[in-house]
Amino acid sequence: RKPVEMDGERKDPLGLPYYSRAEVSKHKRKEDRIWVTYKNGVYDITEFVEAHPGGERILLAAGSAIDPFWAMYNQHTTKQVLDILAAHRIGTLHPHEEVEEIKFDDPYANDPKRAPLGVVRCEKPYNSETVIELIPDNYITPEPMHYKRHHHPVPVIDESAYRLVLAFEDANILQISLDDLKKRFKHHAFPVTLQCAGNRRKELEKVAAVQGLEWDCGAISTAEWGGALLRDVLEFTGFGDESALIERAGVEHICFEGNDKPYDASIPIDKALSKFGDVLVAYEMNGKPIPREHGGPVRIIVPGHLAARSVKWCQRIFASKVEAHSGWQRGIAYKGAPCYMTSFDGVDPEELPSVQELPVNSAICLPRPGSKVDVDDGSVTVKGWAWSGGGRNIIRVDVSIDGGKTWYPAELGRGKEQKANRAWAWTFWEAEVDLAPHLSTPGSQLDICCRAVDASMNHQPEHLSSVWNLRGIMNNSYHHVTVDLVREAS
Amino acid sequence: RKPVEMDGERKDPLGLPYYSRAEVSKHKRKEDRIWVTYKNGVYDITEFVEAHPGGERILLAAGSAIDPFWAMYNQHTTKQVLDILAAHRIGTLHPHEEVEEIKFDDPYANDPKRAPLGVVRCEKPYNSETVIELIPDNYITPEPMHYKRHHHPVPVIDESAYRLVLAFEDANILQISLDDLKKRFKHHAFPVTLQCAGNRRKELEKVAAVQGLEWDCGAISTAEWGGALLRDVLEFTGFGDESALIERAGVEHICFEGNDKPYDASIPIDKALSKFGDVLVAYEMNGKPIPREHGGPVRIIVPGHLAARSVKWCQRIFASKVEAHSGWQRGIAYKGAPCYMTSFDGVDPEELPSVQELPVNSAICLPRPGSKVDVDDGSVTVKGWAWSGGGRNIIRVDVSIDGGKTWYPAELGRGKEQKANRAWAWTFWEAEVDLAPHLSTPGSQLDICCRAVDASMNHQPEHLSSVWNLRGIMNNSYHHVTVDLVREAS
Repeated sequence: RKPVEMDGERKDPLGLPYYSRAEVSKHKRKEDRIWVTYKNGVYDITEFVEAHPGGERILLAAGSAIDPFWAMYNQHTTKQVLDILAAHRIGTLHPHEEVEEIKFDDPYANDPKRAPLGVVRCEKPYNSETVIELIPDNYITPEPMHYKRHHHPVPVIDESAYRLVLAFEDANILQISLDDLKKRFKHHAFPVTLQCAGNRRKELEKVAAVQGLEWDCGAISTAEWGGALLRDVLEFTGFGDESALIERAGVEHICFEGNDKPYDASIPIDKALSKFGDVLVAYEMNGKPIPREHGGPVRIIVPGHLAARSVKWCQRIFASKVEAHSGWQRGIAYKGAPCYMTSFDGVDPEELPSVQELPVNSAICLPRPGSKVDVDDGSVTVKGWAWSGGGRNIIRVDVSIDGGKTWYPAELGRGKEQKANRAWAWTFWEAEVDLAPHLSTPGSQLDICCRAVDASMNHQPEHLSSVWNLRGIMNNSYHHVTVDLVREAS
Repeated sequence: RKPVEMDGERKDPLGLPYYSRAEVSKHKRKEDRIWVTYKNGVYDITEFVEAHPGGERILLAAGSAIDPFWAMYNQHTTKQVLDILAAHRIGTLHPHEEVEEIKFDDPYANDPKRAPLGVVRCEKPYNSETVIELIPDNYITPEPMHYKRHHHPVPVIDESAYRLVLAFEDANILQISLDDLKKRFKHHAFPVTLQCAGNRRKELEKVAAVQGLEWDCGAISTAEWGGALLRDVLEFTGFGDESALIERAGVEHICFEGNDKPYDASIPIDKALSKFGDVLVAYEMNGKPIPREHGGPVRIIVPGHLAARSVKWCQRIFASKVEAHSGWQRGIAYKGAPCYMTSFDGVDPEELPSVQELPVNSAICLPRPGSKVDVDDGSVTVKGWAWSGGGRNIIRVDVSIDGGKTWYPAELGRGKEQKANRAWAWTFWEAEVDLAPHLSTPGSQLDICCRAVDASMNHQPEHLSSVWNLRGIMNNSYHHVTVDLVREAS
């Protein structure tokens, strides 16, 4: 065995110095620079910490190896992330400090068995879309087809031991068993569409690279969620609508902690308490107990907000003066950034607003991109979904087959009957558009697109470029699908 | 005196027949065709009735002269309206039936005396904009400068005899005096921006002709409105949030009747009852009694909705299963129509949704169009307002001086401090944009534009063409101002 050399003396094959684990461990704080190792590489991530999508949790690895964390947060081992890391490389571990690649028990071993439905965007944690072409057939998405968006392994929760904790900041006030939740509070159930803020992210790549899973337009599904109203549970806890407690304590947010720590998220107090907010402490999905996969036994359902606020496996609800603390609430992952912010370096995420309600949106489910349309059919039938945040009803969907030059009204189907300002679920639409002679040449293409208007008269913006943002969230520009015109008759 | 000829016999100088008033009076119903006279012209307006912006009130003149009505609804005597009428001319009154032009007492004789502030779009009824270039100087618009949008003469109301009637449909429940309104209910006051749904209509003319007053971007102003919460008044009447009465009676709308009959308008029940809806039964404007001009003694203030719902001179509030009945609620004037609806012929206004909340919007107040910018200044300072309906905060305003190719963030000023989801007043913004070398040529122009994003992440749509509608309402496309680059130094 060779004598230990001084850190930083000899150069590795990259021309960078060798370091010992002892030296790396001295770099845990910003003042000392923050170093981590991955495999045998040494990295100075001081400048990257603020831009880390997962927020300060990256500091758990400061001064040591990030390998164990990445075994959990498996979404890191993509080329994109490895490239970012590579840019911060400052050296290599001394060869005699290298250890065999660390082996871990698979934290995902207990994930539910899944039917292969929809496109899987990530295996661990599991993230899959619903089957886009089947959306128009099912106003209520069949549960196995509901899109899945996990940040962690799916926890295993003992329902008989389960307690929902109600709290004010750090002070726990009371605990409710699952049975109590079902018996003490009036049961409510209604269809709610959940949509990932990153839905339709893939299209934004046409403008410039974005961070995150490349969702098509299927990170959206609808279920009939049932349970107690959060408003009633809060009332029971002493934080009711008419309680002066809320105002005296300066409560502005209701926060939800998931069992998959450190996940938490929050909603503004008006949404939580409003009689017309319809936030659920849910224990049913489509009339049955919520499957583990979708957040059972107890999941928060925040209709009209991005789905990240509908916290799965909820085990603690607390009233607070401030927003929830995790990166999913305060980090850049779900912050609204402008198109001209092309890097998060030096950006304080606290200065960007947390996304809550989503904007008006729509997408074409049929035909699918690249499908064939027979010119002899004389028309093309276009189907899709439309949905807006905040319970705002969809009042109109327009369809074009010439890229937006000419527009036709779509017929609104299921969902248009929803109550004013409580349209928590999507509205289906359909249009049969005649193929004009100049749009009937076999071998050419049709640029089919759609746009929706909601009850607040907000329109979808036309171009990807105006909504593009580095995190690739809230793409609600006109949705386009290109199909091939053919003549199939012999 | 000549013998009376048979109707329709002789031709007038236009080549059309002469008719008697007796013949005209037979045409009062659709089945008989609907005729009216204006001065000595005879018109068949059967096809126009459905398209009439004022709805079926036009039928009050069926079979007779519209002159007395136009003396009241003075906005009709514009070239646009006279052209529409001319297209329906079918003849001329017999010369011996002509009477001297009918003289009426001026119904506007009692209108308030007004200082000449802002552009007057119509004298009778009085409609004037606020002074656009002064907007950025006054977060609370000085009362004389507040925009005015009347449909009728300003009524004179005896405050001591005034009673606000509370009702369920046609059944009056109780009456409240002005004094009671002030004493019985907690006083609330906060800034609310009112905006006419037709604000920025003028720009839409660039796409195609629209109906209505040609508002620039000044049909918007802010006042601190004070009074009782509608919620409290309804509670007192038995229609409170927790009252089962609402649900038992199937109440879906709260309607407001103005003293300027037949004006009425309504809002959905959730807006009226929500603790976070902040609808006022107002009796103060900027700390003083509401001037007659702005709806005193009692005006409804519906923050976040188009100003047509903030009914002036309110004298009756009634809970109802259905929307208010007047054309201002149910007619086409405030209905959301698509860009491809280029005529209202055969359109049933009931099939179009009533506009309530307005979409995200912004406009440039300075510089004004056509002003000069000295290239030697090296930069141009752009100022304006941004506002969204439904209390949604403005989270960002972008400014461009090259017509939208390059965008810069504006700094948000007064208004950005408003509570989440209760941003009832506008947000001011300002940006100083450097004149790049290619944008510094004296004699050329700058295309300055702005766009805002609200808390629901809704963006303004880019093009006038996508929001164009025949009534010219809710123009929230990017706002453009063209200025001239000059070199002023000698």
